[in-house]
Amino acid sequence: MKRRVEQRGRFITLEGGEGVGKTTNLRLIGDILARRGYDVLVTREPGGTPLAEEIREVLLARRDEQVTPLAETLLVFAARAQHVQTVIEPALADGRWVLCDRFTDSTFAYQAGGRGLAPAIVEQLAAWVHDARWPDLTLYLDAPAALGMARIADRDQDRFEGERTAFFDRVRAVYRERARSEGRVVEIDASRPLAYVSEDVAAALDLFLAGVACSA
Amino acid sequence: MKRRVEQRGRFITLEGGEGVGKTTNLRLIGDILARRGYDVLVTREPGGTPLAEEIREVLLARRDEQVTPLAETLLVFAARAQHVQTVIEPALADGRWVLCDRFTDSTFAYQAGGRGLAPAIVEQLAAWVHDARWPDLTLYLDAPAALGMARIADRDQDRFEGERTAFFDRVRAVYRERARSEGRVVEIDASRPLAYVSEDVAAALDLFLAGVACSA
Repeated sequence: MKRRVEQRGRFITLEGGEGVGKTTNLRLIGDILARRGYDVLVTREPGGTPLAEEIREVLLARRDEQVTPLAETLLVFAARAQHVQTVIEPALADGRWVLCDRFTDSTFAYQAGGRGLAPAIVEQLAAWVHDARWPDLTLYLDAPAALGMARIADRDQDRFEGERTAFFDRVRAVYRERARSEGRVVEIDASRPLAYVSEDVAAALDLFLAGVACSA
Repeated sequence: MKRRVEQRGRFITLEGGEGVGKTTNLRLIGDILARRGYDVLVTREPGGTPLAEEIREVLLARRDEQVTPLAETLLVFAARAQHVQTVIEPALADGRWVLCDRFTDSTFAYQAGGRGLAPAIVEQLAAWVHDARWPDLTLYLDAPAALGMARIADRDQDRFEGERTAFFDRVRAVYRERARSEGRVVEIDASRPLAYVSEDVAAALDLFLAGVACSA
């Protein structure tokens, strides 16, 4: 019985606003874990299943219609419900490690922080959709909103990336608050050049892996 | 102040399983209301806004991927949140009457009854999405599952229409229970030929309109 629990995989998420270097660091983390011999599933939210990717398209599309914060949040959790139950949970139960670009911390930051939705609604949805299944480790890449926005200025921007600085200031405030209050979240200063950020990401991951090794 | 309340429109929904004649009777109700001089908005769920219609497509598409009951329910309520806040509520506040093909009774019937999702989740979502805004009148067209299925057998079936009889038996059981327990729901025997059904629909609507006239 005990052995089965120890064989369960770990769930690692990467969080942050726009232009903080999530994509590059996600690849780095995946490479480090693979080199250590872990069977890693790299996935993303919203998305990660065909249905959830369709929901992602609906969520990110720029549109004339103003999407209500509640509709947006329910779409995010619809995709998450499908992703958790059909992909993430089965992978973890099989002993695979799951590395996910964004998870429920993003919903607190973007929909509660950015859009002003009541955090209690996000709490309740999280309880239904993933119960006690929070990530084992969350790396949060922090940078001032204006800096991140400048970095993505020449991208083709989706409905979120097209928001204003005040929106991303609220997103960041929630992320930082969660980094302080949630033990699993490690905040990394992503306002520096990428090489320094990646060094800190690798160090935080090493520390986590040392802990996993000790508990095995 | 009192006058403003009286000018508010009424919200009427039509409910039922597959093949019970909802489309024809929706048209009939719209015609009756228009002849009485009401400004009627005819709409449907899931749907009723460009975003909600996109969500409808995601929901109804037949797919290899098994959609979890919770993901399905959250999608339904995402569409509903958008529909209620941007279309239904503004229309009612303007004094228009809203006639809607399906609403939250469908979610209790299909997702809680048919799929087995906990009804408490539907209750909580309904409270967030439309609070005390339940229809003023709901006409529920009732027919045995096997009869409705036989009537739609030669249609191009969507993901719900392709379900089995046992699923529709559970859907119907919930509908009938709600028809008994909710005062606003009128159950009409739709196993009879359409002309009889429409006669009962018109009679139920007349009774409701008489009540509205008295309260004016």
